Amino acid sequence: MTAFVPPVRQDNPYLPFGDHRNAPFYGKDILSVRQFSRQDLDYIFGVAHEMREMVQRVGTFDLLKGKILANLFYEPSTRTSSSFTSAMERLGGSVIPINEVRYSSVSKGESLPDTVRTLECYADVIVLRHPEVGASALAAKYAKKPIINAGDGVGEHPTQALLDLFTILEELGQVDGLTVTMLGDLKYGRTVHSLARLLALFRVKVNYVSPDILRMPPEIIAELKELGLPQDEYLTLDDVLPTTDVLYVTRVQKERFEDPQAYESVKNAFIITTETMRRARERMIVMHPLPRVGEIAMEVDEDPRAAYFRQMEYGLYVRMALLAMVLGKA
Amino acid sequence: MTAFVPPVRQDNPYLPFGDHRNAPFYGKDILSVRQFSRQDLDYIFGVAHEMREMVQRVGTFDLLKGKILANLFYEPSTRTSSSFTSAMERLGGSVIPINEVRYSSVSKGESLPDTVRTLECYADVIVLRHPEVGASALAAKYAKKPIINAGDGVGEHPTQALLDLFTILEELGQVDGLTVTMLGDLKYGRTVHSLARLLALFRVKVNYVSPDILRMPPEIIAELKELGLPQDEYLTLDDVLPTTDVLYVTRVQKERFEDPQAYESVKNAFIITTETMRRARERMIVMHPLPRVGEIAMEVDEDPRAAYFRQMEYGLYVRMALLAMVLGKA
Amino acid sequence: MTAFVPPVRQDNPYLPFGDHRNAPFYGKDILSVRQFSRQDLDYIFGVAHEMREMVQRVGTFDLLKGKILANLFYEPSTRTSSSFTSAMERLGGSVIPINEVRYSSVSKGESLPDTVRTLECYADVIVLRHPEVGASALAAKYAKKPIINAGDGVGEHPTQALLDLFTILEELGQVDGLTVTMLGDLKYGRTVHSLARLLALFRVKVNYVSPDILRMPPEIIAELKELGLPQDEYLTLDDVLPTTDVLYVTRVQKERFEDPQAYESVKNAFIITTETMRRARERMIVMHPLPRVGEIAMEVDEDPRAAYFRQMEYGLYVRMALLAMVLGKA
Repeated sequence: MTAFVPPVRQDNPYLPFGDHRNAPFYGKDILSVRQFSRQDLDYIFGVAHEMREMVQRVGTFDLLKGKILANLFYEPSTRTSSSFTSAMERLGGSVIPINEVRYSSVSKGESLPDTVRTLECYADVIVLRHPEVGASALAAKYAKKPIINAGDGVGEHPTQALLDLFTILEELGQVDGLTVTMLGDLKYGRTVHSLARLLALFRVKVNYVSPDILRMPPEIIAELKELGLPQDEYLTLDDVLPTTDVLYVTRVQKERFEDPQAYESVKNAFIITTETMRRARERMIVMHPLPRVGEIAMEVDEDPRAAYFRQMEYGLYVRMALLAMVLGKA
Repeated sequence: MTAFVPPVRQDNPYLPFGDHRNAPFYGKDILSVRQFSRQDLDYIFGVAHEMREMVQRVGTFDLLKGKILANLFYEPSTRTSSSFTSAMERLGGSVIPINEVRYSSVSKGESLPDTVRTLECYADVIVLRHPEVGASALAAKYAKKPIINAGDGVGEHPTQALLDLFTILEELGQVDGLTVTMLGDLKYGRTVHSLARLLALFRVKVNYVSPDILRMPPEIIAELKELGLPQDEYLTLDDVLPTTDVLYVTRVQKERFEDPQAYESVKNAFIITTETMRRARERMIVMHPLPRVGEIAMEVDEDPRAAYFRQMEYGLYVRMALLAMVLGKA
Repeated sequence: MTAFVPPVRQDNPYLPFGDHRNAPFYGKDILSVRQFSRQDLDYIFGVAHEMREMVQRVGTFDLLKGKILANLFYEPSTRTSSSFTSAMERLGGSVIPINEVRYSSVSKGESLPDTVRTLECYADVIVLRHPEVGASALAAKYAKKPIINAGDGVGEHPTQALLDLFTILEELGQVDGLTVTMLGDLKYGRTVHSLARLLALFRVKVNYVSPDILRMPPEIIAELKELGLPQDEYLTLDDVLPTTDVLYVTRVQKERFEDPQAYESVKNAFIITTETMRRARERMIVMHPLPRVGEIAMEVDEDPRAAYFRQMEYGLYVRMALLAMVLGKA
């Protein structure tokens, strides 16, 4: 057989020319907000901020050229899936999109450990969305390549919490000293639980505003109190709105109420309108994990304090940072 | 934190080194055939022809390297979706494929404006296929990034009409002076309606051949007459075949007929065979938007005048041209 | 119109600067294991070995930069689809993923020949997975671009057989002189049929171990005998295990048995445990096409002789080799 000599790229990112393999998070999994120290967050957000500047300057760059992401979604999530795909592509890497696992090997009964051990033969990093709590930890136990948890059931969705916090930091310049008000369904929303856990690493004041049946779970309040986070609960936004720096809105779902009347009687108190904004601080920001279904009126979109679409963009930078970090390139 | 310096590409397409931002269509939406002047078409087809030459010479080139297309399909369309994906990849760009919107955020009730405002955080241009008329215009109203309409219900599918016209131009060298015969279901086919509107910008003669119940809608005939397009209607192909330069075939669906007998009595008159081709001009071309289901016999595929597969290829060049144009690179 | 001059890459892979167009398999289809000679296999595995070394050295390289693969899956197969996607991306090429054909043009009744003739307008090579026997041959008959069969019903899955054989070669250094024992469902498993056909090109001894109702079909045994392959049949693994070099395990499905009791009575004889491994050769390897559902206990994964996950990785290299070869770059 004739010798086969494929062209080798000059800027070969695989040769250990730098010291990036000693960098924090190289080869690590991103499974839970509980794994991060305050110092970790400073590092992640520093890299994410650099990503933001690079994207704004050059759009895309070849930091992860030649690297492959397996985007493994056991349940559909257009937003999260697109965000990771874009993050990898803006870093010059490639993506294996896997959206149909429910029809495939898995429906033939394959275990998650076998699936990830197969996929890591093809990819350098695996992003996993799964309906079951603990799926990411299980995958990480068996995989040699890094696993990034993109949501496992009612469990964790750490990259969402990180992007939420990064949004606050980029929009308001700091986190320490702020008052964050969480509004809506605080019982079932994993988003607010994870964000609150991260906020406990900062010097902030947190307000919970929710219908009585959707209050922040007592065990989470207790856990955060232990960590020294000042927290207060309210049934309406009125008292806390004037002192709020960050208004984090979540959806109050009709289905959560046994009595439709009970829902009707409270729902208007949890919808943000231009009237709400009139009573809010001039530098307050409104956040929402999206999708929204009516809990923020579309008229609010024009208000410069409406940060929820910018929040999506910050998510891109955080995910770029995480991908670069676990692949040892940041 | 240590300074983070990602490599910057030398051929950075994001810095405004040229005057391409003054180019026609830069940052514009492609929503409807009605938005194009004759001069616009000359420009688009000029760029599309250059794309054809480049693809034939080098296959792929890096004109849109670093740019990202969100390919947002609310209903499946392998042909159109693959064509846009290939167009972006042949220009060195990347694609976020989004085919499962019906299972996703959207099924949680998210509005189209919210979905496109999220996706434009991740992508540089959005191609949208949607089952509802006017969806693309709605998306374009809210998006800051360019929207390309890839079909909105029974409404518009402008890139199909452009590729149809480009096929005629490339195959026959000109459009002015030709006789174009449209055959089959002229009532429900948005393809022929859009093509007829574009043809009205040229000096052509148009024949409509269809079963009586599937005639070109009178309001469209009136609209085109206003624009000065010479049009005639026929029930059979026989009279017009010998003078036809372009035979545009569409499918006559059995389901359109209340009476199965009525369908049986006409169907053969709308099937193209080698016998039909024998009576046609030597330089005539046969077109079809595809998929076909029997309305052109497979034996015709061997005839050099069968242009319908080449038509798919011209679609690639037109879509490459449009992507490059709206992104300011052509 | 102003002149339009897109940048041309210096390392243009489309100009015929080398003699690769005379290379074996350039422009050819990969349809069946029956198409390969012993010499062909030597060539393919030589290229695949180079691919392995390149991936281990540099991860990804630009041998197929600018080339596009249409990954056309009429039925889902995460493993095979991801493997081909990764193979193309590790070679610097792009992929058009087409997973929803069942909802699309095809459901409108389009024929396979029309679909592939459309897709080859957009892509340089088509990988096809289809539920019907002979689909790949039909596609290849009409397509001008190379077709790679990624499984057609109970017919062929040639790249699986090639990767199986490549695994043996890479793990054990040779194929000639080995004893290969196939275990489990040998009646319905196309994998073992194809592998046995390839093994007939080497000097090997093959043992078939299966429940009586799942024996290797007599016509295949006869065909291979004709080719001079030494074959023996057994009902249990006990006798042949000590002399086995390659243990190829497949799944025994409960549904194949009319009598549930019959299944219960045999199933344990076809499950591999650490106890089985204790009685096996020190250099034996265990293979499995995956997914597995219990036929190899998870405890065996730790054994260095468990080669089934490495087998997935060898599949990547074989598919990289095939893509490079049919595109004339190896």
